[in-house]
Amino acid sequence: MSLGTADLRPLESYVRGQWVRGAGSGQVLRDAATGAAVARIDASGIDFAEVLAHGRTKGGPALRAMTFHQRAGLLKDLAKLLMDAKEEFYALSSATGATRTDGWIDIEGGIGTLFAYSSLGRRQLPNTHLLIDGDPESLAKDGSFAGQHILAPLEGAAVHINAFNFPCWGMLEKLAPTLLAGMPALVKPASQTAYLTELMVRHIIDSGILPEGALQLVCGSVGDLLDHVTCQDVVTFTGSAATGRRLRTHQRIVDASVRFTMEADSLNAAILGPDAGPGSEEFDLFVREVVREMTVKAGQKCTAIRRVLVPRGACEAVISALGARLGKTSLGNPAEEGVRMGPLASLTQREEVRARIALLRTEAELAYGHPDKVAVVSGDPDRGAFLNPVLLYCDKPASSTTVHEVEAFGPVATVLPYDTLEEAVELARRGGGSLVASVFTNDATVAREAVAGLAPWHGRVMIGNRASAKTSTGHGSPLPVLIHGGPGRAGGGEEMGGVRGVTHFLQRCAVQGAPDLVTAVAGRWIRGAATRSDGVHPFRKSLAEIEIGDQLITGTRTVTLEDIEHFAEFTGDTFYAHMDEAAAKANPFFDGRVAHGYFVVSVAAGLFVQPDPGPVLANYGVDNLRFLTPVYPGDTLQVALTCKEINPREGADYGEVRWDATVTNQNGAVVAQYDVLTLVAKTWP
Amino acid sequence: MSLGTADLRPLESYVRGQWVRGAGSGQVLRDAATGAAVARIDASGIDFAEVLAHGRTKGGPALRAMTFHQRAGLLKDLAKLLMDAKEEFYALSSATGATRTDGWIDIEGGIGTLFAYSSLGRRQLPNTHLLIDGDPESLAKDGSFAGQHILAPLEGAAVHINAFNFPCWGMLEKLAPTLLAGMPALVKPASQTAYLTELMVRHIIDSGILPEGALQLVCGSVGDLLDHVTCQDVVTFTGSAATGRRLRTHQRIVDASVRFTMEADSLNAAILGPDAGPGSEEFDLFVREVVREMTVKAGQKCTAIRRVLVPRGACEAVISALGARLGKTSLGNPAEEGVRMGPLASLTQREEVRARIALLRTEAELAYGHPDKVAVVSGDPDRGAFLNPVLLYCDKPASSTTVHEVEAFGPVATVLPYDTLEEAVELARRGGGSLVASVFTNDATVAREAVAGLAPWHGRVMIGNRASAKTSTGHGSPLPVLIHGGPGRAGGGEEMGGVRGVTHFLQRCAVQGAPDLVTAVAGRWIRGAATRSDGVHPFRKSLAEIEIGDQLITGTRTVTLEDIEHFAEFTGDTFYAHMDEAAAKANPFFDGRVAHGYFVVSVAAGLFVQPDPGPVLANYGVDNLRFLTPVYPGDTLQVALTCKEINPREGADYGEVRWDATVTNQNGAVVAQYDVLTLVAKTWP
Repeated sequence: MSLGTADLRPLESYVRGQWVRGAGSGQVLRDAATGAAVARIDASGIDFAEVLAHGRTKGGPALRAMTFHQRAGLLKDLAKLLMDAKEEFYALSSATGATRTDGWIDIEGGIGTLFAYSSLGRRQLPNTHLLIDGDPESLAKDGSFAGQHILAPLEGAAVHINAFNFPCWGMLEKLAPTLLAGMPALVKPASQTAYLTELMVRHIIDSGILPEGALQLVCGSVGDLLDHVTCQDVVTFTGSAATGRRLRTHQRIVDASVRFTMEADSLNAAILGPDAGPGSEEFDLFVREVVREMTVKAGQKCTAIRRVLVPRGACEAVISALGARLGKTSLGNPAEEGVRMGPLASLTQREEVRARIALLRTEAELAYGHPDKVAVVSGDPDRGAFLNPVLLYCDKPASSTTVHEVEAFGPVATVLPYDTLEEAVELARRGGGSLVASVFTNDATVAREAVAGLAPWHGRVMIGNRASAKTSTGHGSPLPVLIHGGPGRAGGGEEMGGVRGVTHFLQRCAVQGAPDLVTAVAGRWIRGAATRSDGVHPFRKSLAEIEIGDQLITGTRTVTLEDIEHFAEFTGDTFYAHMDEAAAKANPFFDGRVAHGYFVVSVAAGLFVQPDPGPVLANYGVDNLRFLTPVYPGDTLQVALTCKEINPREGADYGEVRWDATVTNQNGAVVAQYDVLTLVAKTWP
Repeated sequence: MSLGTADLRPLESYVRGQWVRGAGSGQVLRDAATGAAVARIDASGIDFAEVLAHGRTKGGPALRAMTFHQRAGLLKDLAKLLMDAKEEFYALSSATGATRTDGWIDIEGGIGTLFAYSSLGRRQLPNTHLLIDGDPESLAKDGSFAGQHILAPLEGAAVHINAFNFPCWGMLEKLAPTLLAGMPALVKPASQTAYLTELMVRHIIDSGILPEGALQLVCGSVGDLLDHVTCQDVVTFTGSAATGRRLRTHQRIVDASVRFTMEADSLNAAILGPDAGPGSEEFDLFVREVVREMTVKAGQKCTAIRRVLVPRGACEAVISALGARLGKTSLGNPAEEGVRMGPLASLTQREEVRARIALLRTEAELAYGHPDKVAVVSGDPDRGAFLNPVLLYCDKPASSTTVHEVEAFGPVATVLPYDTLEEAVELARRGGGSLVASVFTNDATVAREAVAGLAPWHGRVMIGNRASAKTSTGHGSPLPVLIHGGPGRAGGGEEMGGVRGVTHFLQRCAVQGAPDLVTAVAGRWIRGAATRSDGVHPFRKSLAEIEIGDQLITGTRTVTLEDIEHFAEFTGDTFYAHMDEAAAKANPFFDGRVAHGYFVVSVAAGLFVQPDPGPVLANYGVDNLRFLTPVYPGDTLQVALTCKEINPREGADYGEVRWDATVTNQNGAVVAQYDVLTLVAKTWP
């Protein structure tokens, strides 16, 4: 322990329902800009097997007792809570080296992810405990054996091992899908900036929003924690490839096939399209984006642009434009006004970045800036981890290896010239798999060709052009609705991506059996399962009364040629197949004049609708409508309407009911099949 | 090399466009029943870096040049070819120890998987080169920035390392999704039964159906092959957990985050429901299923039932019934008539199984059969790897570990008594993650509770009852449309599952940009992208002429109260919200009488349909119809119909065109939005 830090507040871990301090004195964490001691960190003495067990036995069951919508509600409550306290986080954030803008990404970006997952949880997930995955599969010709994939919450805990650069977002972007899935989380922030994560977790725990055990925090080393994980747990890791490798090959993770997701820094490329010469809008956008990615968070972003791919003839112009903008990036103490870029996370980190730049310089030359010359507008360049932007240029990128493999995790990028678009794509792929690449072009062909070549090697590709200049979220910003992750060097993982991210914490299971039993298990009626007709029209039943499998068999209606002609005239749909016998016969699918598909579904509604005011409030849509057999004059139609799925809406006095509608003709042939979507009152009258 | 095998035909590998023999003399493979030498196997001297490169540079590009439907066509051609030659495979199959029934699972089950993937490829995938994954995401309020996930074929090779028990199916169930995805495969069968795989691959290669490089075969050790894989390759492994662990932690697989899928044997459980007492149909089904799983392939199936969970009071009856049936399982040379069970794969394998039984016997007792007493109806019990069924009983399964951990990969299972359903589920989970579990019950509550507890620990759960007795595909049969794999001990992998299995060979990539560019890249029109109206009604354009983004803005129609009343009367849909002003107003969603949703879409069709015979042949359906704003009398409707997706059908003179239909009112509010699905002639007239 350093002198003068003996009385420094030790960070605490929140485990097994209480805040605890490590048994040792731990490591001193310092302000990135001033070098002042901020906190001590130590987690020794914690019984990690018990911590995991606490999450599994307390947090898991409590979360799984809630529906997806109820958990979405938790996320919204958390987001509001944290938004109200955001200034506290900003205040502490500058110690990590973050400017207000950097802090915004970390703090409000993280909170925004909670809001986004709360919203998509309510919109895209059912208000139940189980996710249905895909359509049922009929496994027998007579329909007596069927399959349905379901996604069930894992019964372990999610261990999130996070990176130092985003102490808030890094936690929240993983926490949102984890909690939404119904899994408790154990968060282990990187030590360097753990004090900010700890502050945020304190707010969360103090609020009492989450059930006990749903969130635990370990500030310090997780010791033997991984020795205790099982196949019901999930381990995610964000950080260096070297640490990732060590975790991925951990004996217990390998032996128990523990789900392991890794997101490692990669050598992301930005390509200036061959069409986007100096003077074009895309050229300017490109320059702005490269500078932004080099300087935001002082370039300490896993998605930052490291390789700047430029048509050979435009390199000089690009370097000059980049240099001009980089020169305006005032470096200093992020707590002070007018500072546009803060220090790196620590002096150690600066040494590391300088060492990487030295490696890069074996194959590239300095094009702007110098790693050893520090110019600050505020702060002490010796005590703070300050580093001005450094731009390199590698004239022969095809034969270089370091520029595609060595990452300087700071405000550092290398300009690489290319001669053809194909070569640019090939150079981007030399990164061995990246989180993201971007292409700046206003040419659809360039965009198409570039993306075709980049897609197999990237988790995300951004196209920048004038049309999205004002609204683009940028090269470096992972979004809750899009996947974040990439193949190869980027770790091979996937995070977020909307509901996709939730499924990482669920087990897919194929359930097979008689339709009745599969329906009972999955909670969605499938064809072949039992139906009930108790004499009460199902539209007379409230959400509380209706049951899956409730069925109405309607009366019949015989379609006449007059009906068809009348419908055509009334709607204006006089398509020849309805109007002209000879022309209809010439159509490969019809034997003569046919009824309109829209007529069939309209007549079907006429057959199944119960007209009086009742619990069914509205038909809000139709899904998967297929016209399977043509309807000819003289055909007699009948509908079977069966309650398929019931989804009460949280905090409203109605819910959604999905009905299977099957329209048959007098021969029993299915004429049309679809889902009718209705809103139904929870109680009636 | 053994005496008398010097002139034995060596198996060949098919690599880099030719059949080659290993440089060494290799290992002798023997007939499981007779001990006679069948073949020699050796792959030494092959340059595996070059083999991988051949697949990547020859097979990959040729496959990726084809569409999904064209590749589905290849699978169908392969399936037909192999079905025609099936008797050749059966003839060789008995050397592996397989009876005709066992061979049927392996040979025709494998060919059936090709047929199934061919069919689902044509039905569920587009006839293009790229898969669209999910809906587009609007990323800007003004719609000027959007995201779309795509799935692009990986550009490497799939290395399939297979198990000995299913030399045909094991290859084909992986080959089908691999080729459909557009990826070349390199198959490495387990040595013991590689001669059958080799024969099948010979047929495939000789047929010339596959482009060169799409399929390579290595008979023998793959040497340093894994040292050369990259993040564009995929490695799948089926076999023992120990080998799986070694592969999973292979330096290169770890360093390059190479996709690795593992499917290991597991201690699958079958549960006799508490309701299914002796005398019930489910009891009999259960007994039959356990015997089937113990004896098919002599129990050498990764999905076989190893743990037989029975209500304590029914154990005696179950053991007695199992014994009676097992006693009828004639063991002998599978090439001979009347033999119901063949030998294990090899004498070594028999020793291994006996050793495992000895381990199991430390915590379980023999209930039927004896591992050391061999009774055959044909064949030499010393030279053939014969083993009669062995049933064990473990009285205290909760405190036992071996019965949940030690697998005897042969005709061996252990009966475990349970007292409550909860305990049965808990015991099943003690397997630490399994491929499959089954529950035999006719009680929906038992099924629901059992599946809820089993799902997080299993890749598949089968429910057996009287209703599906005749059609159930059984506990042990993986199906192409359902996932095969399981968490934890089962390896944590997933195979098949319909299209899910195809995505294992594709890279998901989130593409972001202006809607125009995202549309150009993904090949599906998204809202906000450019549209074209050239004065020609898009329904007058053939598939060859029409382009994504072609748009029709229709005329308008003002809806009157008379229209609504007339539609109600004509269709019979007199729902109060259309008919009764006061009642409609009382509805929480309406301000007064509203038009029928079906009327709105009927009128919309009237506005956008072009009546004359033309290239548009039929409207075969509607997707994702949502009524977003109520339509009141006096509202004026207009439709924008935009060509969204074009999908030519392989081998037909038409294709599918998907249209975005957006109906707006006089205020520009969107009234209804949906996809209209049409069949359009490839050329016209």
